[in-house]
Amino acid sequence: MSMETVEPARSSRGGSAPLLLRALRGEAVERPPVWFMRQAGRSLPEYREVRRGASLMQITHSPELTAKVTLQPVERHGVDAAILFSDIVTPLEAIGIDIEIRPGVGPVIESPVRSAADVARLRPFEPDIDAPWLGEAVRLTCAQLEVPLIGFAGAPFTIASYLVEGGPSKSMGRTKALMRSDPGLWRDLLSRLADIAVSSLTAQVAAGASAVQVFDSWVGALSLRDYEDSVLPVVAEMFARLRRLEVPRVHFGLGTGHLLDAIASYEPDAIGLDWRTPLADARRRLPATVGLQGNLDPAVCLCPAAVLEAETRRVLAEAPRERYVFNLGHGVPPDADPASITHIAELVRAYRYGEGARA
Amino acid sequence: MSMETVEPARSSRGGSAPLLLRALRGEAVERPPVWFMRQAGRSLPEYREVRRGASLMQITHSPELTAKVTLQPVERHGVDAAILFSDIVTPLEAIGIDIEIRPGVGPVIESPVRSAADVARLRPFEPDIDAPWLGEAVRLTCAQLEVPLIGFAGAPFTIASYLVEGGPSKSMGRTKALMRSDPGLWRDLLSRLADIAVSSLTAQVAAGASAVQVFDSWVGALSLRDYEDSVLPVVAEMFARLRRLEVPRVHFGLGTGHLLDAIASYEPDAIGLDWRTPLADARRRLPATVGLQGNLDPAVCLCPAAVLEAETRRVLAEAPRERYVFNLGHGVPPDADPASITHIAELVRAYRYGEGARA
Repeated sequence: MSMETVEPARSSRGGSAPLLLRALRGEAVERPPVWFMRQAGRSLPEYREVRRGASLMQITHSPELTAKVTLQPVERHGVDAAILFSDIVTPLEAIGIDIEIRPGVGPVIESPVRSAADVARLRPFEPDIDAPWLGEAVRLTCAQLEVPLIGFAGAPFTIASYLVEGGPSKSMGRTKALMRSDPGLWRDLLSRLADIAVSSLTAQVAAGASAVQVFDSWVGALSLRDYEDSVLPVVAEMFARLRRLEVPRVHFGLGTGHLLDAIASYEPDAIGLDWRTPLADARRRLPATVGLQGNLDPAVCLCPAAVLEAETRRVLAEAPRERYVFNLGHGVPPDADPASITHIAELVRAYRYGEGARA
Repeated sequence: MSMETVEPARSSRGGSAPLLLRALRGEAVERPPVWFMRQAGRSLPEYREVRRGASLMQITHSPELTAKVTLQPVERHGVDAAILFSDIVTPLEAIGIDIEIRPGVGPVIESPVRSAADVARLRPFEPDIDAPWLGEAVRLTCAQLEVPLIGFAGAPFTIASYLVEGGPSKSMGRTKALMRSDPGLWRDLLSRLADIAVSSLTAQVAAGASAVQVFDSWVGALSLRDYEDSVLPVVAEMFARLRRLEVPRVHFGLGTGHLLDAIASYEPDAIGLDWRTPLADARRRLPATVGLQGNLDPAVCLCPAAVLEAETRRVLAEAPRERYVFNLGHGVPPDADPASITHIAELVRAYRYGEGARA
């Protein structure tokens, strides 16, 4: 649908909603909205300043500090959305799982989850009781924010991989062994993690988040067959439940080129792509009602301005006009110069659909 | 080509050659040859016994110890090929680069390679002078071996990623930034690494190796566009030079589903696949003259026998009859029970093409 064919009524209703939501709903937009995964956090000096006085957990448990660091990249970069500063394992810590986020490593769990007794420890997450700071952080953030706040949660497979491996893993060997060896226990594990994610996202939306993103960052480690057999049913049901929140639901995973059709089958409002899958390929392959998000290679944030500009413009030239959100293909590198990120945001904000590719 | 159409002369010539070579040459075979990436090393108690008395570098520099640990999996598992026990960064250490293989981490380099001066330190590798133990280890191994020895080397991109990052990296941010920011320096770096790999493989073949495998383990981190622009020309030329060695040349990389057609374009004798790309899909996509190797998920080595058997038989049922080598989709997990590996080898040895899928 080109801009010319938009009905006035729809355009005017859409015009009052924030750009991110209009894009994710398939309404006409002049340019893509832009935000960055990991836009808050280590790449920003003002975040590192907060961290000098507070641990990660202290920030997470303080609505004031969470709001502060969530807002920092919005103020600095002028992005079109905030994403709650938190970690995908925060709800686990809130229900008493002994999990710790080690800087430079990732989530580490003392007693990996491998038996039925271990899985049984994953009780339901009740945000009001287990994590009252979560809703409060969302409310405080939204009160100070002029762009939408994106809530987020970890997807069952990715969270399961940390729990089963005991920490980050390249091969996911123990996770896949459990998946294949004990499908009943695996399904129980994933269902509990899906429940936890849905509870967390429900609380975030109730408190003011106007979109949600589900991070299944490591699910690309699975073959399509394993994904369809052992993960998709749980995530599909989870996305169906999230539909009741009446906010756009975005799925993100790395290296999911071989899984995209399966992911699209449960009708997320958008799929986040990494840099390996060209936007044009994904647009051709996937149903028109599934939006796209991405997919500038984060490595360009470490490049000189000329490279960064050329790559940003290449992504913009390849981007579909509808249901598209500009983002990186993964998180902002911690060692990126924040000025690079600001510059990318400026380029996207200055872009207008119909300009075509520039040299 | 089915078994029935094989010309007698060709069949009889092929019959005298080892199964691995017959399969890689496209000759008729009754069953696929089998070997395992990382079949030597940490998964074997007899290797850990050797390691109690010698460091990794001491093993690499001792032809006797290298031969010993290279032979261990052949004796234990009855595989159809040995692969020289070494590391892809061994030639770098031999030309004086300060690189160390840290157990459980991988190659770590004190001064990462990021400038023209750093790249200039990568002088040509002269195996006879820099690493006399390399050819001697191959000769000693071959003298005791009844199956072919596979020589190997790291591909330019994967080696470059260790050199530029300073060690293993998930994102390869610095590597890709150098690739994009300074294409001339990048090409120089890759060309030097290709020369080093060709020198190493030439020495290994001269000493008795009868096939070579090039490990570009991490190249799947690139988009097809970046691969074609910045890596393929160097690797294509490298494979063309390796053709003069007159032994089969195998390419391996993880997560290369989106790069397979490009990799096939330089006509390797076989491409190693990880578990993400089904063998049948690869067979349909790639030219018939390019063989396949793989692609059992290494995680099944950590599963009970029933799972391991079912998955092995599934791969066998899906395997093409021609130009196919059974292997895992990546290395043997260090914590795998060696009995699992032996069992997989037994299943493949007992298999006959034409049996079809078994329950």
